[in-house]
Amino acid sequence: MAPIDLRSDTVTKPTAAMRAFIANCEVGDDVIDVDPTCNKLERLTAELLGKEAAIFMPSGTMTNQVGVRIHCKAGDEFICEVGCHIYNYEQAAFAQLGGVATRTVEGLGGVLHVDQLRDLIRPGNDHMVRTRLVCLENTHNRGAGKVQPYDHVEDICTWAHENGLRTHLDGARLFNAVAATGIPAEQWSKHFDTVSVCFSKGLGAPVGSALAGPKEMIAEARRHRKLFGGAMRQCGIIAAGALYGLEHHRGRLVQDHANAQILAAAIRQTEGLALSPEDVDTNIVIFKVDPKLGSAAQFQAELKLQNVLALAISKTQVRLVTHLDVTEAQCREAGKIIERVAGELAKGNTAAKELEPAY
Amino acid sequence: MAPIDLRSDTVTKPTAAMRAFIANCEVGDDVIDVDPTCNKLERLTAELLGKEAAIFMPSGTMTNQVGVRIHCKAGDEFICEVGCHIYNYEQAAFAQLGGVATRTVEGLGGVLHVDQLRDLIRPGNDHMVRTRLVCLENTHNRGAGKVQPYDHVEDICTWAHENGLRTHLDGARLFNAVAATGIPAEQWSKHFDTVSVCFSKGLGAPVGSALAGPKEMIAEARRHRKLFGGAMRQCGIIAAGALYGLEHHRGRLVQDHANAQILAAAIRQTEGLALSPEDVDTNIVIFKVDPKLGSAAQFQAELKLQNVLALAISKTQVRLVTHLDVTEAQCREAGKIIERVAGELAKGNTAAKELEPAY
Amino acid sequence: MAPIDLRSDTVTKPTAAMRAFIANCEVGDDVIDVDPTCNKLERLTAELLGKEAAIFMPSGTMTNQVGVRIHCKAGDEFICEVGCHIYNYEQAAFAQLGGVATRTVEGLGGVLHVDQLRDLIRPGNDHMVRTRLVCLENTHNRGAGKVQPYDHVEDICTWAHENGLRTHLDGARLFNAVAATGIPAEQWSKHFDTVSVCFSKGLGAPVGSALAGPKEMIAEARRHRKLFGGAMRQCGIIAAGALYGLEHHRGRLVQDHANAQILAAAIRQTEGLALSPEDVDTNIVIFKVDPKLGSAAQFQAELKLQNVLALAISKTQVRLVTHLDVTEAQCREAGKIIERVAGELAKGNTAAKELEPAY
Amino acid sequence: MAPIDLRSDTVTKPTAAMRAFIANCEVGDDVIDVDPTCNKLERLTAELLGKEAAIFMPSGTMTNQVGVRIHCKAGDEFICEVGCHIYNYEQAAFAQLGGVATRTVEGLGGVLHVDQLRDLIRPGNDHMVRTRLVCLENTHNRGAGKVQPYDHVEDICTWAHENGLRTHLDGARLFNAVAATGIPAEQWSKHFDTVSVCFSKGLGAPVGSALAGPKEMIAEARRHRKLFGGAMRQCGIIAAGALYGLEHHRGRLVQDHANAQILAAAIRQTEGLALSPEDVDTNIVIFKVDPKLGSAAQFQAELKLQNVLALAISKTQVRLVTHLDVTEAQCREAGKIIERVAGELAKGNTAAKELEPAY
Repeated sequence: MAPIDLRSDTVTKPTAAMRAFIANCEVGDDVIDVDPTCNKLERLTAELLGKEAAIFMPSGTMTNQVGVRIHCKAGDEFICEVGCHIYNYEQAAFAQLGGVATRTVEGLGGVLHVDQLRDLIRPGNDHMVRTRLVCLENTHNRGAGKVQPYDHVEDICTWAHENGLRTHLDGARLFNAVAATGIPAEQWSKHFDTVSVCFSKGLGAPVGSALAGPKEMIAEARRHRKLFGGAMRQCGIIAAGALYGLEHHRGRLVQDHANAQILAAAIRQTEGLALSPEDVDTNIVIFKVDPKLGSAAQFQAELKLQNVLALAISKTQVRLVTHLDVTEAQCREAGKIIERVAGELAKGNTAAKELEPAY
Repeated sequence: MAPIDLRSDTVTKPTAAMRAFIANCEVGDDVIDVDPTCNKLERLTAELLGKEAAIFMPSGTMTNQVGVRIHCKAGDEFICEVGCHIYNYEQAAFAQLGGVATRTVEGLGGVLHVDQLRDLIRPGNDHMVRTRLVCLENTHNRGAGKVQPYDHVEDICTWAHENGLRTHLDGARLFNAVAATGIPAEQWSKHFDTVSVCFSKGLGAPVGSALAGPKEMIAEARRHRKLFGGAMRQCGIIAAGALYGLEHHRGRLVQDHANAQILAAAIRQTEGLALSPEDVDTNIVIFKVDPKLGSAAQFQAELKLQNVLALAISKTQVRLVTHLDVTEAQCREAGKIIERVAGELAKGNTAAKELEPAY
Repeated sequence: MAPIDLRSDTVTKPTAAMRAFIANCEVGDDVIDVDPTCNKLERLTAELLGKEAAIFMPSGTMTNQVGVRIHCKAGDEFICEVGCHIYNYEQAAFAQLGGVATRTVEGLGGVLHVDQLRDLIRPGNDHMVRTRLVCLENTHNRGAGKVQPYDHVEDICTWAHENGLRTHLDGARLFNAVAATGIPAEQWSKHFDTVSVCFSKGLGAPVGSALAGPKEMIAEARRHRKLFGGAMRQCGIIAAGALYGLEHHRGRLVQDHANAQILAAAIRQTEGLALSPEDVDTNIVIFKVDPKLGSAAQFQAELKLQNVLALAISKTQVRLVTHLDVTEAQCREAGKIIERVAGELAKGNTAAKELEPAY
Repeated sequence: MAPIDLRSDTVTKPTAAMRAFIANCEVGDDVIDVDPTCNKLERLTAELLGKEAAIFMPSGTMTNQVGVRIHCKAGDEFICEVGCHIYNYEQAAFAQLGGVATRTVEGLGGVLHVDQLRDLIRPGNDHMVRTRLVCLENTHNRGAGKVQPYDHVEDICTWAHENGLRTHLDGARLFNAVAATGIPAEQWSKHFDTVSVCFSKGLGAPVGSALAGPKEMIAEARRHRKLFGGAMRQCGIIAAGALYGLEHHRGRLVQDHANAQILAAAIRQTEGLALSPEDVDTNIVIFKVDPKLGSAAQFQAELKLQNVLALAISKTQVRLVTHLDVTEAQCREAGKIIERVAGELAKGNTAAKELEPAY
């Protein structure tokens, strides 16, 4: 039996309908000409985000890092929350490939307040880098799918623009924030110069991400995409999956959120486990494992033996993510298994021998 | 009527059979796990090239630049032919993203001789960069699809390895060299530490390239691919097209080469046009336009009015490329049109007004 | 009358004896050969720091950044206190020129505890940078010349080495820490792979800094120095000043510390001013100006009218530094002027119109 | 007896008068304020070069590389002669630290003609770097002190500016070109946006170089100098030597040139040696050693035994440089020794056992 895979919402496989759409899509050479399906995806993305233009790329790492490169040159600095994806999970490409520095600020579950930022703009002084950009992430992955409070976003971006800074939104899961709040994508997005969104997470597409913004910035992004090796020929083949997901799978994200509540409820009532944070805003659930039960890696391994795939993300934390390929029933089942595993570990009963390589 | 598109072998669209194969391929999350179709493609590529491992990426720019990064760090230098793709058409990512310098050498139609390289290794001296790598390109794009003479390749690579240098082959069109010479890919490839090949050119796949080499180097490449944003989730969707092309379209490259000869013959007998170089080894034909006829851009524009798409690559040169999506009959037709256009231009008759943006 | 210049200990001018020593020093071409005076300075520095070798450079920015480059390549990360010089005042050369990322931690007055660092080493994972280095600063400039508690240094460096990290000490004012604690330079230094010291601060030399460490690391530093344009021909001319300072001015640093106490005492008894931090360990005094008196920039400007030069380092903070070129009497005088200025400002009497450009 | 040191014009030691000037110079903190002697040097340099401003740095490597950085950002390219100092002897800092690429062109003895450059500007195209700058070197070190023909310089720079490119002159030995041609520095310099000159070569100063250009560019240079760690506190101590050299040693460069002719004459009449190139324009003499006599390294070693220091710069080439610290008589003596050494080697008599480390 296929496992209940809660490691990430990136594991979804294209549905039959999406595969059919891919198989029949129109394509062209997007490097010397234009790929019509990719073009359609870019136009729809721009429209949904209220931006002039958008550009398709093979990954969210690329859209985020190209976003940073549009705003920051070598010797510039951007401000971000210390747990965000751009800073932690993209090999610091901003520094490694672009010579850009960071000023990290610790948020509350991934949420920053503008008062934390007011003193961080570097004075114009040859000793110092130039502060150029603020990056936010919504929903916030390490914050357990936390939706940024809308007024925080508004305050931070207003302050940033008033002080000559640019703003970039890592909106890999922006459509989850939209589904959770009812605030349209365009309204979130209007506070940012550039916005990246991912198609291969909640939207269920096999591959891809887009960066949206003003025309000239996206033209510049095109140059950076080429530099990174992200320009693709008949990219309609994957853009089709993204387009299908964008058109058909945004509405159903609320179901993923409801399923995450089922998991959260199970964890809340389990001794030795604690939601971290307590609130589950969207489709990500992070919980702490009491060291008395064992490590997070041990917990992950025990779940795997019970056919539930989860992800240990630190010594004590385990992450679960709901998505297109797990049903409500599977989440109920997973909840029960989590409770059972915790119970056995409390009794000192471990079954798993081989722990996965580290988080 | 669809134009006869001779701009590049990258313009091919997936065949019906390839689309069917794509639609039914098995996929997985290649970032946290493995995508089985991508994995199969990587294994087949490695096998054909006689290497331990291979890794799939979204473009040849990425495989080439990652190849360079495996061998060269900031402050290192590589030697290459001055007209090669890595140096000219990849935005100097080696320098821009990696701090790597180049020592270019002018070859004869893209072909270097080892004697040109013998004095180019920098002495160990704090004033100087460190020479680390030689890059060759086979077939050579700017050299009009020139096949590198096998003994030149052997001599250069032997000298390089004897002198502590690494070697990388930009084999974007290596399978054309194989088809033209009968020398197996593996035999070409054994002289190089790393080899990149493209699936979206002669092989007709929509997207993708692979880098092959020893296991540890490919593991390092995986890290660079992540850094560049080239790690993709259910990449089987595009790897399937590449796999299909690799399995079914290598054999037919000889037909592209025969078709190129048809175009070459037409050019040879046309006043005012001159093949450059005279020999056509594979599927690329470059010719010079006598300035008396007009510029290469004008010639391109006139051809376009006649439904033949070509590419002006300098003020005086036009490039034609044969591929899966142009038939023998279309090449004969294109040949006649080229002759006719040259004839009209010789008489001073120009029809095209709008020239394409510059090469 | 010459002002009492408390802006920095970098403002000292060479004494007559130092000038005589400079005028008569032996020199050579240090790039193709060796400069004997520079060589002597390097040997003495290495000896004092208990290291195999040392290398002279034109500035502390260069020795620090070369230090980081020895330990970290592009894609690596180092851990440092958020207020340290390397992170804030060297234009993030580590990122800008080296592609290196940072993980900053907020210390208490510039002091870190090992427990703050234990979870910061990145797991071996292609999403992440590689943690390579811990940098400490002693004395800590932004921490008002704070001496790092010896056991904190020992604990952090032991933990770092046990976990495969390297350690670098920004010891621009290490000899102040030595003078304040009696702990020899060598004992501080033994915990670090590399140590930088400055000659143009408390030691009173016109120009220069040195980096000390194991032979092979210093050989590598030589290459980086060349790259940065820091290799100098007859550098004995400035190395002589540094050598003289190192030989003759270490002992007198205690006098600077005593003079700083005089300033501190004056501030303590002045309404509207508050030492920040309260303790003054060495030769730097930082105090906060109550906003009711006006901004730090205003306070600086008022002092300047009274012939006392100080440095506003934030909206509310002013810094004073004692050194070779200010006497005990001048410090007493400056203390009185500070009290008087605060008193006038409290009454709303401002005299200065033109404020200096921002900190 | 002190050797006759012809290795480089960088080996000169400060004269007694220069030392006295250094010992008495006025200084200040050039980082937070201004150093008056350095300031005077910068103003005089700017004036002599007909530029608005100049900035002092510790080396010619730094002034050149900062010059390139002012004109080129990552992803830009500059054009230069393949043998020039910036490309060969500065560790490719342009690429290594700045992500800048190069287009090298082979000149005739270091001399380029504008016709070689006309086709090298890259079209505006996302595949390619952006051509931004042309660098020339005058006199040309590897070209044996070759003076650039004035009309070549004029033609190249006019073409460059007409095509939107910037121009930088590596004028490390510009004052030698002035002395050799009578064309004033200002006249050479007016064709270039930025010009670097060295004080530690023919002018006999211990340390330093300056970059001159328009005010805003020099302000930008100040930022890059800080980044490279080239900002120095009481830098008047070395600026004084440079200022003295600039004021007193320009006129005497003709004597160095006359002395070089003495060496050249000796080589011309020596069997087995050949000037390369035949003409000696200024103070550098390069000659080839017939392999029958032995290697250049052997020749250098034999000369050293006879108290003449020279520099083997390739397997077959030896370089001699005249300067302030070698007299006419010493050059006559060196000429005789060269003849004698060649004679002995021709007879197969070698004395030197230990060859110097490689060029």
